[in-house]
Order: sequence, then structure tokens, then C-alpha cells
Amino acid sequence: MSHNTFGHLFRVTTWGESHGPALGCVVDGCPPGIRFTRDDVQQELDRRRPGQSRFVTQRREPDEVKILSGVIEDGDALVTTGTPISMLIENVDQRSKDYGDIARQYRPGHADYAYEMKYGLRDHRGGGRSSARETAARVAAGAIARRIVPGMVVRGALVSMGEKEIDRANWNWNFVGDPENPFFTPDPVSVPVFADYLDGIRKAGSSVGALIEIVAEGVPAGLGAPIYAKLDQDIASGLMSINAVKGVEIGIGFEAAKITGERNADEMRIGNDGKPVFLSNNAGGILGGISTGQDIVARFAVKPTSSILTPRRSIDRDGNDVDVMTKGRHDPCVGIRAVPIGEAMVACAIADHYLRHRGQTGRQ
Amino acid sequence: MSHNTFGHLFRVTTWGESHGPALGCVVDGCPPGIRFTRDDVQQELDRRRPGQSRFVTQRREPDEVKILSGVIEDGDALVTTGTPISMLIENVDQRSKDYGDIARQYRPGHADYAYEMKYGLRDHRGGGRSSARETAARVAAGAIARRIVPGMVVRGALVSMGEKEIDRANWNWNFVGDPENPFFTPDPVSVPVFADYLDGIRKAGSSVGALIEIVAEGVPAGLGAPIYAKLDQDIASGLMSINAVKGVEIGIGFEAAKITGERNADEMRIGNDGKPVFLSNNAGGILGGISTGQDIVARFAVKPTSSILTPRRSIDRDGNDVDVMTKGRHDPCVGIRAVPIGEAMVACAIADHYLRHRGQTGRQ
Amino acid sequence: MSHNTFGHLFRVTTWGESHGPALGCVVDGCPPGIRFTRDDVQQELDRRRPGQSRFVTQRREPDEVKILSGVIEDGDALVTTGTPISMLIENVDQRSKDYGDIARQYRPGHADYAYEMKYGLRDHRGGGRSSARETAARVAAGAIARRIVPGMVVRGALVSMGEKEIDRANWNWNFVGDPENPFFTPDPVSVPVFADYLDGIRKAGSSVGALIEIVAEGVPAGLGAPIYAKLDQDIASGLMSINAVKGVEIGIGFEAAKITGERNADEMRIGNDGKPVFLSNNAGGILGGISTGQDIVARFAVKPTSSILTPRRSIDRDGNDVDVMTKGRHDPCVGIRAVPIGEAMVACAIADHYLRHRGQTGRQ
Amino acid sequence: MSHNTFGHLFRVTTWGESHGPALGCVVDGCPPGIRFTRDDVQQELDRRRPGQSRFVTQRREPDEVKILSGVIEDGDALVTTGTPISMLIENVDQRSKDYGDIARQYRPGHADYAYEMKYGLRDHRGGGRSSARETAARVAAGAIARRIVPGMVVRGALVSMGEKEIDRANWNWNFVGDPENPFFTPDPVSVPVFADYLDGIRKAGSSVGALIEIVAEGVPAGLGAPIYAKLDQDIASGLMSINAVKGVEIGIGFEAAKITGERNADEMRIGNDGKPVFLSNNAGGILGGISTGQDIVARFAVKPTSSILTPRRSIDRDGNDVDVMTKGRHDPCVGIRAVPIGEAMVACAIADHYLRHRGQTGRQ
Repeated sequence: MSHNTFGHLFRVTTWGESHGPALGCVVDGCPPGIRFTRDDVQQELDRRRPGQSRFVTQRREPDEVKILSGVIEDGDALVTTGTPISMLIENVDQRSKDYGDIARQYRPGHADYAYEMKYGLRDHRGGGRSSARETAARVAAGAIARRIVPGMVVRGALVSMGEKEIDRANWNWNFVGDPENPFFTPDPVSVPVFADYLDGIRKAGSSVGALIEIVAEGVPAGLGAPIYAKLDQDIASGLMSINAVKGVEIGIGFEAAKITGERNADEMRIGNDGKPVFLSNNAGGILGGISTGQDIVARFAVKPTSSILTPRRSIDRDGNDVDVMTKGRHDPCVGIRAVPIGEAMVACAIADHYLRHRGQTGRQ
Repeated sequence: MSHNTFGHLFRVTTWGESHGPALGCVVDGCPPGIRFTRDDVQQELDRRRPGQSRFVTQRREPDEVKILSGVIEDGDALVTTGTPISMLIENVDQRSKDYGDIARQYRPGHADYAYEMKYGLRDHRGGGRSSARETAARVAAGAIARRIVPGMVVRGALVSMGEKEIDRANWNWNFVGDPENPFFTPDPVSVPVFADYLDGIRKAGSSVGALIEIVAEGVPAGLGAPIYAKLDQDIASGLMSINAVKGVEIGIGFEAAKITGERNADEMRIGNDGKPVFLSNNAGGILGGISTGQDIVARFAVKPTSSILTPRRSIDRDGNDVDVMTKGRHDPCVGIRAVPIGEAMVACAIADHYLRHRGQTGRQ
Repeated sequence: MSHNTFGHLFRVTTWGESHGPALGCVVDGCPPGIRFTRDDVQQELDRRRPGQSRFVTQRREPDEVKILSGVIEDGDALVTTGTPISMLIENVDQRSKDYGDIARQYRPGHADYAYEMKYGLRDHRGGGRSSARETAARVAAGAIARRIVPGMVVRGALVSMGEKEIDRANWNWNFVGDPENPFFTPDPVSVPVFADYLDGIRKAGSSVGALIEIVAEGVPAGLGAPIYAKLDQDIASGLMSINAVKGVEIGIGFEAAKITGERNADEMRIGNDGKPVFLSNNAGGILGGISTGQDIVARFAVKPTSSILTPRRSIDRDGNDVDVMTKGRHDPCVGIRAVPIGEAMVACAIADHYLRHRGQTGRQ
Repeated sequence: MSHNTFGHLFRVTTWGESHGPALGCVVDGCPPGIRFTRDDVQQELDRRRPGQSRFVTQRREPDEVKILSGVIEDGDALVTTGTPISMLIENVDQRSKDYGDIARQYRPGHADYAYEMKYGLRDHRGGGRSSARETAARVAAGAIARRIVPGMVVRGALVSMGEKEIDRANWNWNFVGDPENPFFTPDPVSVPVFADYLDGIRKAGSSVGALIEIVAEGVPAGLGAPIYAKLDQDIASGLMSINAVKGVEIGIGFEAAKITGERNADEMRIGNDGKPVFLSNNAGGILGGISTGQDIVARFAVKPTSSILTPRRSIDRDGNDVDVMTKGRHDPCVGIRAVPIGEAMVACAIADHYLRHRGQTGRQ
């Protein structure tokens, strides 16, 4: 994992700025013979796309993916050849003028100050490389990653927004993708609650954080490795690499710090089919850094968007105190669109470990 | 980060099993001309060493480090030459017979089952490679890492244990290293509370989790990078790579999911000395994956030790239901000794980024 | 160096097939603040471009580079921001029908058979990923790499073609880029000799190999490292990664196997300016894997193009004996256009080590 | 490949100086379940060991290997567990006083000057990290690597020494390991010729270079990848990483630059057993960076040892002209002992690609 590449055998390199002509990714190390369609990728991008409800940024980007290499056509399908898959998405609706005022100011909570300390210069338009637009490339890569591990399904859901949270008793995966559900919540009852709450936030020119849960089903036992290739380590690394993420936990996560060994340990029995059965999943499907065959469960916390209309105290490049108010179009809760991004990162991390495991051990 | 190596320019490779003749690490990429003594390393190891109080495992290991390469002597000091530093610690007190009963059983909460699914075989003695003994090698590497960034100080503290937590109003860094403090707690008032609580846990043959906080002061602004080399990503990766860690957060972490952008954003002003000042540190010293010059703050959750005396339901290699009770010597709260380990991983992650930043940008 | 990425801190990832819509590269880890123009890149591409004389393939590709990210405009110049630089070149003149006959046949000397053994399928059009067109992306990346090390100049020349070789007494770097010189030869006298020789080869439907020499001047002492980061190792790795290269040597190279230590060792003296002077450069500017400050000298052997009009015995996918004759447009001496490619790889390898050296040691 | 680590999935990290207490390696990523004995490793080390004839350095090192981790005992055999294998060799016969005179002088042809330019300091005793003793660790790692690819046999031979070369008509692999053969030559007739020649060199206090050929049989088709993971690239990288190597070639190598496409291309036919047969092996078993199933053939040139008794002109650290004569014990032809080292590097490179290929494609 270095600079702009994620993964070891299944490697994703992303590039592109918010206000440049395009952004994209190169997916390297994909096995040959994987079948998919351009639509498979586009559908994932559409889930993350801005401008789809009043609860996300009003920037209008079609986010149409072009697949430039690494596949051959076979009827309507594409088949991977084992060579790098380059995908490109053009930026269409960049309004750089929105950012004129803040070219020399550091927006609180943004990367502006840190960037300038690092590079000595920055592309201030839309945050440049630190824009959430970069995550479109991850989602495209994730659409390929989802096809690597046979039988794996990776799904995500928003489980809380600011002070409001779902009722897990109502969890319904099918509802997450419902067109009437602008929040990726699995709880139908939560929709009007989140809608009212976020309308208030939005109208106040404010923003709010969120908590996302990702579940990967169908992951075989044995992926990962004991020390610096722990599966949970690389999932955490992938999720923490998403903009605005401030915390990651696996299984019961921070709750594990509070309980005893008796309560925490997931007991096992031989099931009726003669196969091992776990009686609980506090571990989130990973023990000693290696998958157990249970569902992989990870959660991550997304901070509130730093671009808000309320003026905040800050400084400028010349060393003056200033008050900063961000006028650009922004998500009042960037955590909503983080759901497909989190899924993509988990899919990429697991796909990579699937190939690594197969490489080292010869097991499939 | 792959297999058993952590880091990109400052690279740590660890090796060794709990019940083999020795364990150790190779620290590669260390700058030349770094001065330290063997005692500097030994003192860090002594902080993590087992057998020092009734609250940690009674295994007696002197953990004496041998430094085999990468340094030249200069009086009492050692000076790094820029070549790999190999450090070795002999295992002395391995009692393999303690593990005889569980050679064919999978201990709930341990990596036993996952290991066998991965490798088809395992070294069951003391958990083999997944033993907490491996972390001694990390602490030795961290002792070198601490010297890479001029002026950096990395300290850690246990902030909660099971249901008990410290009072932050009593925070005293000096007390953390006090000989009367067997818990690395920064709150003197908490010592008898933790002691009573853990005595109860220990006598019940149980175990409990803990929460650790690591603070790195003196980290210059500009370390890290926007996408897959985020400083917080690599700190999270390092902390999640420690045995039994189930969650990591930066700054206010999961709390950020609950609040608004106004509350979250750390405002700035020009200080009396003409330098930028942050008015809060919700971000934990990292914005957009890049350090801001504020203190780096990370917390991680350690699950309760899975080795407990209470029998738990499990299965064996032959597909039988069994009840497992672990008789080996174990920490009732493995989170205590995780404090110096967490410090080591944070020091290694920051040292690596310091070198990478200097490499890419030429800034020091 | 893995899959399709070259380099450690200065990382180049290339993608694209000969007969897909486009090819390109992502240059990651470039320092911020490097100034260049689109023309700087285009001029390097023009040197490698096909169709410029009767001695190279008649495929007509404008090879116009688009720079999609990683830079901000400053007047006519571009300035790197430290983020990944994505460059794209569209394929214009792909004639897939030329390859119809060989879809199921393995061309001797080509990668066809090996590809199919690896991936189970292949993109036969123009060799797919193994086409020499991929090298355009390397040349674009090299144009950036050339600007990383202050004062470095990397130049290359063809020193022999088949049975014909230059007279080193006539070496004239300025002549290499002369418009009347279609061979990148540094010896003006050799032009008619090479022209006659290659006309004969070309008219016979044959092809011939060549030897290329690359010289990097202005490389500071201290780049590289003793064991697996040897500067000559990574230069050799980069040159061997070019299609059709079968051998690499540094300095006097294979000649060193034949001589004594007295003759081989480059003696030193303090020069009139008080600085160290080497009295010869048998080492090619590298000792113990580390640059000495002398010119870096590397040579590589390019095999004859395997696409020839003379029928050769081979087999097809169905296990039949067949005779193969390649009708596509090809270079009679692919070694000619290998000159700018070799320069690019040497520039990339040295740029990477410059950043790594600065990272580890803090020296610039 | 970075710093002191070689390989991507099968990773070898070496450490240790010529005159420190020990040297060793960590082999990471080895598949579980590989059986070998400590003697298997020791025998390889014994082939490389100094002090075995008057033609190699008279330093007496038993080079006894200790295997510290990554294996479990199964009767007399060791079985790999999939965790890192740490191997250690103690230095016994280091005579640092031999080097007293040259602490401040730069030996021509050695890395002394380059080291000091890089690190600002150096361990002058025996060359420190650049000593040929480091290669013992590679040979130990290679002994494991040889067992990864089922059926693979890697052998090497010295094919020329200075002005003398073998007669390939006499090639006899069995003779290479003959106790009466101190040169690893495959040509029995060459022994007295090399012996006389090298006696003359040795008595004159001189040294001489050599050419080594490595052949890997039983390598399956499909290993390697088209661009920056070419099998020949990584073999070249591994061989160039050996001390004193100045050139590498694959198959007919530099000869390919001189011939036509007709002569170079290896034709194919379906054999009597219905399997593909190559009619020649100019490619050295690799096409387009991918193995073809033919023997892998690589050659590398080793320069003459720079440590010679004849005084050479040089400078010292204080900027004075000096004459340098090296008194330490040295190999008059370091190329002899390079044979098992070259084998080890080729075995490691192929083992790594075997695992990578299995990982990406699922083929074994």
C-alpha cells in the first residue's frame, strides 16, 4: 500500500482531481477469465453518484465509466485477460469559480493546511486530490473485485446518522437498495427520521457524521495471515483510506474492550451437516487475522463534511486570521455515499487476500 | 505491508514462534548515524516483559535483546550504519507441555481453527506465530523508530479496562511509568480500582478487554499522503496488526459520526508567536491523511484474552464436539502489555512516513 | 516491481493493449513543484513514434499525449502537485484484420504460446499487452523522470545492428538526434552502412537485433544501496523489462569476466580542484550497487523482431503443426526505437533511487 | 525488491556484516507443508563455504546454519508452517586487524567510496555489508526456494575464467559437484587449465573474473508476466544483486543482437507424445517475460576481486592521494563461489513467480 496504490496481488491505483478533466483507476493483477459487463461497473457507480437526492451534493456528474484495457469482448460481456484494467470517468460539472474565495484560505477540517505543509502548493479547486470524487475510481475497482472470490457478496448499510440510529430489529438488506431509500439504511422506519433530521442539518448550512456497516458473506476460511497481512488489518487500512473516516472496528469492535473472555469467545459446535458451526460472531469473521468462514463484519465512522456554510475561524497563506465559509456544493452527510465506497474497499481487500492465500498455500 | 513486514522505507520484519528457540526482527531502511544504546532497546522490552506483576502472565522471560548487525560501536553507544539491524530475543521459559491437551482442539476466540483452515497444519504450542510473544520484536523495532523523527515523543496509556475507566481529569503522563503502577494508567486514582477489578477477573479464571490511547507529540506537519498512504491509515494498519485488537480510532474517532461539522472542525488562529494555532484537536492531528503538526492521537480496543479457565464449547480436528479449558499461563488483561506495543507501532508508522515524506518532497 | 508497476517511491504503472482504444501510464510519487510542458513529453514520444522512416513499422500513430491529472497550469508550463500524473495516448491506426490468420497460431519467438499457458486466453491482436506499443507509456513517464534529479542528463545510442557496429572514435552525441539519422547512431559514418544493411534485411522480410548504450551524466554519488536495492540491479531490471531485451551489462560488463583485478579497478586521485577523480570508468559509475558520481553506463541487447515474412514452423491451439508467416506491419530492427525506451527506463530507475536515497539518508 | 528484501510473495530478507557476530536471513511467504532437513540447507552452504581449496579465500568459516523459526519437527525432517523462517550463521573467523590500514582509504573497485558518499560513514571491516559473506544468507534461502516448484532442478556451472573457457562438448553436470573439481566447471578437461591459470593469478597477488551459467529445468510454462513482472527481469534483478556481477543475459543473450529473426526464433512442432516441442532454445526458456516450459538459461559475468596485493592509486577520507594494497584474505576468483549463489537467486526468483502465478491465475 503506497502512495496511490492499494493491494498486493490485486492492486488498485487511482488518479485524478476533483476539477481536472477526468479521474480513474488501473486495476492490476486481476485474474484472467473473469466475466462482467460495463453495466456491472456502471451500476455500482450510479449508487455512489452525486446529485440523486436533495440529501447529497447537487453537483451533476453522470460518472460514465470507460473501460480502456485489460478485457476482450465476448458477446455483450467483457472477459478479463489478466492484464491491467484501466477505467476512466470524465469530470463534467466542475465549477471552479465556486472556490475562488478560498484559494488562499485554509478551510477548518479540510486537508488544505496539511496539503500545503506537505507539498508547498495545492490544487485548491474542490480539494484537488482529497476530493470525495476520487472515490468513484474505488467503486469502479470494487465492481471488479466483487467478482474475484466465488460466491462472495459484499453489502453495506448506514446504521446511524448524527444522533439518530436504526433499529437493528428492522434490518432488511433488500430495502437498502430501494429507490425510495436515499440513505442506504436497512431500516424502513428510519427513513422519515433521517430525512427530517438531515433536512434540518442541510437548511442550517451544517453537516453531520454517520456510521456505516459492511458485511461480506461467502468469504472462505483461511484468508489473511497472522502478523502484518491480517485480513482485518487490511480491511481497516482500506476503510481508513476513505476520506473523512475516523474509526474502524471489526465484529463487536470497541465493545470487546468492555467484556470478559467468556462473553467474547465465539463457541463452536459440529452442525447437523457435519460442518463446524460458530454459535456467535463477536469476532466479525476474523480470528488471528485469518477469516473463519463466518460473515466478515466491519464498521467505520465518517466525520461530518467540513464544508459548511457557518463561518469558522481560520488563517490564510499570508498568516492572517480569517473567517471561512464554504460555498461549493457539498454533501450534508458525506457518510451516505460512503456506503458503496466502503463496500468497494472491503471487496478489494478480500479479493487481494484471496489471491495471496491461493498463491502461498495453493488452496482455493 | 505484506506477510511479516511492516512499512515502506522504514521496514520491520518480525519472525519467531512462542515456543521456538528465539524470536526477533530485522529493521531495514533505518537512516545512518542514529545513536542509541542497547539499554534503550532493553528498557522498552522491559516495559512489555511478562512476569512483572500478578496481573500479567507468569511466564518468566528475561527478554534480553541481542543486536546482531547494522550498527558500529562508538564508546558506549551504537551508531546505525544504514544497513539492516537484526535483533534477537531468546525464548527461555517455554513450557510446551501446558499445551498438550489442546493440540487437536480449537480454542474458541483463538486463531487455532482459522490457522488450520489456512495452512493445513499449525504449531499449537502457545499459539505459535499468533502468540503475543511476537510483539516483543515490534517493541524492539519501535525503540529504534522512536529515534528517527527529531523531537518526536510517543507515549501510551490504558484508559479503560472492562467496565472500569480512568478519570481524564487526573491524567498524569509521569505516573504511567511509575513502578507502583502495574497498569500503564495515567490516573493514580484508578490503580486500586483496576487492581480490585482485575483480581476478581483473574481469580475467576476469566479475562477482560481494555482500551489504549497513544499520543505522538512533536510530529511535524506534512507527513502522510492523500489516498493510500494516509498517515492515519498506516497507524490504523499498524495498530490493527497487534494481536487481539478489534478497533482503532483517530482523534475523537467514532464520536465524529455523531456530531455536526461546526463542532467537529478544528478552528485555527495565528498565535502570539506568529505561528498557526489550532483551537481544538478533534482530528487527532491528521487531516486528509496528512499530519497537521498537532499531537497525533489514536486509540485501540483490545479484546479479552481468549485463554480462560472456564470451559467453552468447541470442536476438535476430528470433527467432535469438545469442551476446551486453557491451562497455560496467560494475561488476564492482555491490553495492559499492549501499551508499549501500541507505542511501538505508532512510532514505526510515523518514522516510515517521515522518511517517505523526505524522499518525495525533499522537506525535512 | 510487480505486475505492471515499476519503482518504489517514483512509481510508474502502465496499461493498455496494442489494439485497444488507448494506452497510458500513471506516474505516482513524483515530487511536487517539478515544472515541465506537455511538449517536453510529446517530444520524447515523437522520438519513439512509429512510421517516421522506412526502417521502422509503417503503423501511423500520432501518439499524442493527454495529461489528465497531477499538475496545475502555470502560464504555458505545468507544475506537478505531488499527486499521481495520469497520461493517456489514443490508439488510432490499429488494423486488427492483419492478425486474423494468427488468432489460433503461436508465432515463433513471440509471447503467444507463453501467454496462453499463463492466462488460458490471450488478446492476439498485435500481441495485446506484449506489443511494443506499451513502451510509449514508459517514454512518457521517463520524460517526467528526467526532471527529478537536478542536472541529470540521460542519453542513448544504438551501437551495433546485427553484424554492423559503429566506430566509437566517431562518437558524437549531437548527431544522435540529427533528422538525417534514422538510427540513433552516434557515428555519422555508420548511417549509410546501417541503411544498406537494414534495407537488405527489410526487403528479405527478415529482421535483425541491435545493441543500445545508455549514459546518464550528472548522477550524484550515493544513489542505490548494497543488497537488493543496488542501482545497477534496478537499472538492469528496468532494461530487461523492455520487450525483446535478452541481456544487460553495466560499465565494461561481460568484458569484466575476462580481465584481472589490476586492469578492472578504477583508480582515483585528488583532482586539481581538490575533488576526487576517477582515472577510468570500467565500473560504469556504480560500485557495490551505489553510484560513484561518474557517468552511469549501461548496454542492452535487443533480439530481432520475431514478426517476419519468412514462414516458420510452429503449432496452433488445436495441436496441429502449422507454418506461420506474420503479415502485420513491423519494425525490421525493433532495437532502433528501443533507444528512447532504454533512456526512459534508466531515468525512471535513477529518479526512484534519488528519492529513496533522500528519504533514507536526508541527503540531497 | 527494496533495501534488503528480494521477492514479492516468496520474500527473502538478509542481514549481517562480514565482521559482526552473525549474519542471516528471514524467508517469508514460504508455503506450508514443505519438507526439508537442516542438512539440505547445510549442504548448499558447504558448496559456497570459504577455505575449501587454495583457490578461494583462506578465511575459515564453518557456516553452520541455525533454523530458528517457521518449521515444526517431524522425525528427522522439518516441515514449514507458512510462517517466516529465520536462519542464522555465526561469524567465527573475523580478523578485523587485517583491515586496520584501510580504515580511512578507499580501495579502488570496492564500494568504500560509494558507501561513504551514501551513508556518511561505513563499517570498513571486511567491507561490512558489501562483503561476499552476505551471500551465505542467500544460499540458505535458496535451499528452501528449490523445494517450492515441484520437479524443478536449478544447477550452475562456471563456463569461463579470465581468458580461459570450457569446451561445451565436454559438459557433464555430474562433474560439477565432483570433490576433485574446485571450480564448479562442467568440463573435466578444464580443471588443470583453470588450476594452472589461477595459481599464476594468485601468486601474482592478482585476481580474475569469471562467467557463470545457471540452468533451471522443470519450470512449468506460464510463470512471469508481460511488463514489470517478467521472469527474465526478476532473474536478472536477482543475479545483478550479487556482489561483483556486471552483466546478465538470458538464452543466447547478447548474441541475439547480432542475428536475424529467422535464426533467432525457436520453432515448434507437436512431438510424438502430442505435446508441444521447441526445436531450439535461443530464448532461454522465456518469451514475453513468461516461461515456456523449456529450460531457463541465464549467464552472469563476475568481475575480478578488487582486493589485490598490487598497489593501486587511490585517495583517503582526508583528501590525500594514497596507494592502496589490500592484505586481507580474499578469493583470487570470486566467480567460483558465485555458482551456488547464482543458483540460489534463480531458485528464489522462480519460486516467487510460481507463487504469484498460482495466486493470480489459480493454475498450479
